[in-house]
Amino acid sequence: MSRPAQALNPLILELRELLGERLSTSESVRQQHGKDESFHEVAAPDAVAFANSSDEVAAIVRACARYKTPVIAYGTGTALEGHVQALHGGVCIDVSQMNEILQVNGEDLDCRVQPGVTRKQLNNYLRDSGLFFPIDPGADASLGGMTATRASGTNAVRYGTMRENVLGLTVVLADGRVIKTGGRARKSAAGYDLTRLFVGSEGTLGVITEIQLRLYGIPEAISSAVCSFPTLEGAVKTVTQTIQMGIPVARIELLDEVQMDAINRYSDLSYPVQPTLFFEFHGSDNGVREQSELVGEIAAEFGGGDFQWAIRQEDRNKLWQARHDAYYAVLALRPGCKGWATDVCVPISELTRCLLETRKDIDASGLLAPIVSHAGDGNFHLVFLVDTDNAQEMAKASAVNDRMLTRALAAGGTCTGEHGVGYGKIEILKAEHGEAVSVMRLIKNALDPDNIMNPGKIL
Amino acid sequence: MSRPAQALNPLILELRELLGERLSTSESVRQQHGKDESFHEVAAPDAVAFANSSDEVAAIVRACARYKTPVIAYGTGTALEGHVQALHGGVCIDVSQMNEILQVNGEDLDCRVQPGVTRKQLNNYLRDSGLFFPIDPGADASLGGMTATRASGTNAVRYGTMRENVLGLTVVLADGRVIKTGGRARKSAAGYDLTRLFVGSEGTLGVITEIQLRLYGIPEAISSAVCSFPTLEGAVKTVTQTIQMGIPVARIELLDEVQMDAINRYSDLSYPVQPTLFFEFHGSDNGVREQSELVGEIAAEFGGGDFQWAIRQEDRNKLWQARHDAYYAVLALRPGCKGWATDVCVPISELTRCLLETRKDIDASGLLAPIVSHAGDGNFHLVFLVDTDNAQEMAKASAVNDRMLTRALAAGGTCTGEHGVGYGKIEILKAEHGEAVSVMRLIKNALDPDNIMNPGKIL
Repeated sequence: MSRPAQALNPLILELRELLGERLSTSESVRQQHGKDESFHEVAAPDAVAFANSSDEVAAIVRACARYKTPVIAYGTGTALEGHVQALHGGVCIDVSQMNEILQVNGEDLDCRVQPGVTRKQLNNYLRDSGLFFPIDPGADASLGGMTATRASGTNAVRYGTMRENVLGLTVVLADGRVIKTGGRARKSAAGYDLTRLFVGSEGTLGVITEIQLRLYGIPEAISSAVCSFPTLEGAVKTVTQTIQMGIPVARIELLDEVQMDAINRYSDLSYPVQPTLFFEFHGSDNGVREQSELVGEIAAEFGGGDFQWAIRQEDRNKLWQARHDAYYAVLALRPGCKGWATDVCVPISELTRCLLETRKDIDASGLLAPIVSHAGDGNFHLVFLVDTDNAQEMAKASAVNDRMLTRALAAGGTCTGEHGVGYGKIEILKAEHGEAVSVMRLIKNALDPDNIMNPGKIL
Repeated sequence: MSRPAQALNPLILELRELLGERLSTSESVRQQHGKDESFHEVAAPDAVAFANSSDEVAAIVRACARYKTPVIAYGTGTALEGHVQALHGGVCIDVSQMNEILQVNGEDLDCRVQPGVTRKQLNNYLRDSGLFFPIDPGADASLGGMTATRASGTNAVRYGTMRENVLGLTVVLADGRVIKTGGRARKSAAGYDLTRLFVGSEGTLGVITEIQLRLYGIPEAISSAVCSFPTLEGAVKTVTQTIQMGIPVARIELLDEVQMDAINRYSDLSYPVQPTLFFEFHGSDNGVREQSELVGEIAAEFGGGDFQWAIRQEDRNKLWQARHDAYYAVLALRPGCKGWATDVCVPISELTRCLLETRKDIDASGLLAPIVSHAGDGNFHLVFLVDTDNAQEMAKASAVNDRMLTRALAAGGTCTGEHGVGYGKIEILKAEHGEAVSVMRLIKNALDPDNIMNPGKIL
């Protein structure tokens, strides 16, 4: 499948004809597009095409299909499992210039965007409309990329993931045909759910060129709070009980003491270096008060300290910025090293056990690896701080990671709650889904018989 | 594809060997399994197999696959678009005896059931646990059938549809292989979303033999109310404004004056014969009070009368039983006739116009066809009361229906919000999804190359 650069020449000539200066084969542009934010090695594409429209993406894909050359869609490069690495060379389609917000239907609480629009861009655009888009994976990712990886993040406990919030898509298929899936109705029973099939397909079935998204009214009241716990167990149990009682928290995030130490250093803060929960409550004034009182009682029961409140938007932003900087804060703990962010999700009744066993395992390994958890969903992350050139360290991290994945599957969970499979989790996907992986492969072969769409990912 | 009964003989002998008395070829059993609740003609299968387990379903499908004989899964026969009609003969697999509730995980708010469990059976079972399953299409349908048709109903405005509430499935494929999709984690980014592909696939991709479902805590407070409006427009605008303001109503149902008249007669009630909204509010005591006050203000603004409240469970049950009996109440308006229930869903900003134009069109046609709407979702139904032997009447109904479908698609809506495609909506599906239908066909061919799974449906 890997092709020498020469073999690409006629294709590159064709694409240059089509795109002019927007087709780049420069070493630096190719290198930059051959990696995400993970520790996975760079695998540069042979060329990078900066597309301007759905029709242009279709033309590029048609050309690549004629030459049976791989196509890799690229948004902001903020994936974490090697999703954009051009493992078999080919053409990277950078959609970041397709960043128009095409339509906002305030009355219907939906909008249509191009795939290069980032979540922050959309929310800035919506700011005066009283609406917002809740899905927030931390990075200011493109909505195309978030769709392709079925992203979620801090708000998913209340608002769901991209799975629940994408209404419809425009997709360029492997042969260059353009289809529309879904629509603007809030629900539909009209045929196979192609929208959900493309959400999370990581560019292996087609390139997403338009997205219809659900929006939400900005709640009347929003308040955020931080609460420290003497034990990880107390913090986790506060979360599980909150969820089991059906309290509609908008965010409930858990950071362990290693992560809190990193955040204090990086963001110049002075939170206690203890397992900590970050909350956000959305609703009416009364609703928010009621929710926070209930959660406060639960937290106190499990040894939680007082809530430190952030009510004003600037204070809330500061609090969540610190949370979102968690990854960069971790990287700063050990300059020169890389972060290996991993991700599992388990039924909430298994979260306490899985977290505690994983924490113990990390400590025994001698590695530095803070834990951050979208605990309300049973989803948690480790970030191993590793010297990727140190084989022994990498082997240790790999072993801890494998044990965490196996533990999550044994608990009825999944090998990735939100990062996706990329090429980092292909083996464990088979362990999780067994024979169902062969059905995924049947679908892949049916839609992309020459395997040109982001080959080497998921399957 | 259609096969004479003789050709089935060796298969029937094999199945009788496997199932004994649980394989029926009696005329009455075959006739009963060859129709749903719609006006569509009976198309009886050649045999009905009453399966007891996933393994048994797999064995039946394997046998049918060897003889390239159609397989139609059957739950309660309450579909509305001819879903279970054996258009090409074959073997109907009745899963109603697979009605065990296999596991309830209270802490994780999920459960695992066999496909023959009905929604009422599940809720009766859960009653003392403080949990409930919200999806309620009216009929006491099987959860297998509800999954296969992506059912929703009155609670979907708050709790979503089967799409949002199925966590995972066990499915017997066309070649008899058994796969598990999804899992117990609340979210996952692990590979293609096969669960959502099988939800709504109407038995055309496989037979569902186990379902993992989300559950919810029974709210602290529930109250229901009924409110009449002088105009249909006032009622619809109350709904759209309620949704646009993000008030989390659990149910908001609209019945027009024709339907209210039918309900009064059928259920011996005395509601005003006016467009009417049925509400339900779920939450804390304060939350429910707050929601109902807000909605009350909106209703008053659009000419709504006083709310008639039902707080006690028996009163609420009575109110919703009347709502659920809407279909039977309509049938009673014109004894001897059949009900042709149809279904579209539009963006909520288009609901008022679509409903009013449709009402006008019905009135002009001289047909009797009440409107019932899950208005919070933009979903509405007509039930044409028709003499199916009267060609002129059927043509009129067909024309009104076609105009309603076309109107819904032009408004950005879908040809079916919850009934599904069956074989009644195959043509309009193409109008709605265009080229995307060819992708559905690719998937169908990949998973069921001999087209034995419920052939003639959806595609």
